[in-house]
Amino acid sequence: MRKVYLDHYAATPLLPEVREAMLPYLGERYGNPSSLHGWGDAAREAVEEARSKVAALIGAQPEEIIFTSNGTEANNLAVKGIAAGSRRKGRHIVVSAVEHFSVLHAARSLEKQGYELDLIPVDGYGRIDLEGLRSLLREDTILVSVMLANGEVGTIQPVAEAASLAAEREIPFHTDAVAAAGHIPIDVRELGVQALTLSSDLLYGPQGVGALWVKRGLRVIPLLDGGVQEGGRRGGTENVPGIVGMGKAAELARERMGERSAHLAGLRDALIKGLSSRVEHLQLTGHPRERLPWNASFVVEFIEGEGMLLFLDQKGVAVSSGSACTSRALKGSHVLAAMGIPPEKAQGSVLFSFGPQNTPEDVDYVLEVFPPIVERLRQMSPLYAKYLKERG
Amino acid sequence: MRKVYLDHYAATPLLPEVREAMLPYLGERYGNPSSLHGWGDAAREAVEEARSKVAALIGAQPEEIIFTSNGTEANNLAVKGIAAGSRRKGRHIVVSAVEHFSVLHAARSLEKQGYELDLIPVDGYGRIDLEGLRSLLREDTILVSVMLANGEVGTIQPVAEAASLAAEREIPFHTDAVAAAGHIPIDVRELGVQALTLSSDLLYGPQGVGALWVKRGLRVIPLLDGGVQEGGRRGGTENVPGIVGMGKAAELARERMGERSAHLAGLRDALIKGLSSRVEHLQLTGHPRERLPWNASFVVEFIEGEGMLLFLDQKGVAVSSGSACTSRALKGSHVLAAMGIPPEKAQGSVLFSFGPQNTPEDVDYVLEVFPPIVERLRQMSPLYAKYLKERG
Repeated sequence: MRKVYLDHYAATPLLPEVREAMLPYLGERYGNPSSLHGWGDAAREAVEEARSKVAALIGAQPEEIIFTSNGTEANNLAVKGIAAGSRRKGRHIVVSAVEHFSVLHAARSLEKQGYELDLIPVDGYGRIDLEGLRSLLREDTILVSVMLANGEVGTIQPVAEAASLAAEREIPFHTDAVAAAGHIPIDVRELGVQALTLSSDLLYGPQGVGALWVKRGLRVIPLLDGGVQEGGRRGGTENVPGIVGMGKAAELARERMGERSAHLAGLRDALIKGLSSRVEHLQLTGHPRERLPWNASFVVEFIEGEGMLLFLDQKGVAVSSGSACTSRALKGSHVLAAMGIPPEKAQGSVLFSFGPQNTPEDVDYVLEVFPPIVERLRQMSPLYAKYLKERG
Repeated sequence: MRKVYLDHYAATPLLPEVREAMLPYLGERYGNPSSLHGWGDAAREAVEEARSKVAALIGAQPEEIIFTSNGTEANNLAVKGIAAGSRRKGRHIVVSAVEHFSVLHAARSLEKQGYELDLIPVDGYGRIDLEGLRSLLREDTILVSVMLANGEVGTIQPVAEAASLAAEREIPFHTDAVAAAGHIPIDVRELGVQALTLSSDLLYGPQGVGALWVKRGLRVIPLLDGGVQEGGRRGGTENVPGIVGMGKAAELARERMGERSAHLAGLRDALIKGLSSRVEHLQLTGHPRERLPWNASFVVEFIEGEGMLLFLDQKGVAVSSGSACTSRALKGSHVLAAMGIPPEKAQGSVLFSFGPQNTPEDVDYVLEVFPPIVERLRQMSPLYAKYLKERG
């Protein structure tokens, strides 16, 4: 059976070049970057080289990069660390309604500790309402967080515009670029943000490593106390092989972004077009144009996402429904809800997320196997039976 | 030049078997354990198998293991998470004066947030004073943390006795077993503790992964909010290759502990004996018998640790001085200070930390190169000149 992996938003295969770069650090090149000897020097140089490569991907300075264990840790550090660092100025934070749970739940944790939280509403495409944001900003607002693009529906946010609203009031602005990085050009100075989250795995690097960029001068209280690693902003011995892998992945992302994104967007558009003409009651979710190249997300009416996942899995096709991190939570998507999609419709969400190894043949295979799956699930669906009956 | 790596407390080479176990997960076996398809299932099974192996090393249940990104994160989660989970019961915490900075600084962070912190004093060997601990416990004490063994001086703590004092008052007891695990037998039920920290690298597994064991029923508030990974106690996509590596390392540690510890203790004792007879004004730090098998730590009077490190590095020998995480902080060791060693003497601390690949020839080499280095540094030392002058 053909195997088609279209769940890159959940996990990605390592690029072969990244794997090659990492292997020496899982072998003879062991060492602690803090150590004062040759082994330590080599480890430190490897980490600093990776830091420069990650910084270069987003137009930042290397010393502004804090390596973390994943995007979730970086988002937690941004939200909690910036809030704690600005506590004297106020206790009000503003995040978009469609943030990843690592931003949203971190903000909810702060709320339990006495902070005030407001959510920026989004339109039917999942784009934030800039006027809504403007009206939420207050004298005591100490943080705004709006993702660069939403991984679940692919929508790219007007972050530069949002950041300029925050800048008028000198409020620190954080953006979660996990879903976007490596796929759309990012320059932190042009965006006008003060903090930005990256994850290695969506750069086709290893799991277990991420990074937070924090503009020089913005105070961030560490989440992990301990040694003085990462400029005193994140204790704990560095994951040297992981960091080396992320550095290589960032370097390749920078070199290949144009070509990679064109390839992914071609696959995405072929799938969107093909499914739109083959599957009834199918709706693209997210913005039709301001959209990540790797993301093709839909809701399919009258059926459930889990059913599609399981039947597709039987055909060798891996996809997800809703956020990768929450598919086991079996909760309805907060992103689709914020976009005004009713729960019964949101149940039928399905996300095809492409990676560099995917081919047009992968799309053809999905176009062949997916419509009969939808048809079969509809035949079992009481909601569809009801719809047909009501239509007459 | 011969290369002799004796800084395993700072970083360890991967065991070949661990590397082999990890490689497929850096290749064809990618996947997110939360995903509902074949790739996800395989990743989840790998993580759960590793969880069982880590649990088996310490006599715990698999579902009680929370994977983290290193020992520092696990210690922060233990201290901050247990304190936050017990906040209604009180705000007083007690930790030993010789804890790793990831416990000590985490406790200091809580102090800044309004908690009260008391430090348990230690004797000249670095062993905690049990009567001192008893006298510190209060009605509102919500956490006691005493490490199983100190990595810097090798001293094994009377944790079972300490835990029983806390248990009399039903106070949760955490122990940092990073330096001890894999080298002395650990059974969490016999120890009578409620939380225990492990790190992969001191099991000769990969960097970037650690674990916190928390006894079922003890509440821990997550540090990293996000998805529902690790039983809702640590958000963020799992580092699957790292976790697989830690699992394999734990399995090997359990199988080989007796043999490994005997080998390490033999090297340690040969070095201690050899240096004691070859180097004047050398003092073993830590307990002479209740001691980790891999640890040979000393203070060498009249000279500085950094000088020894740098000259040893020129001879191809890697060692450390003070805690691995703090050698770049260039601060005096808090452990030696707590043991009553005066600062000028503590400046001359040196730690030889052995690993399974070390040989008797490595010890012979150190016995050959180290005494002349000490001699040379002493010739340059104003303190030594003063000592000689005063002695007359």
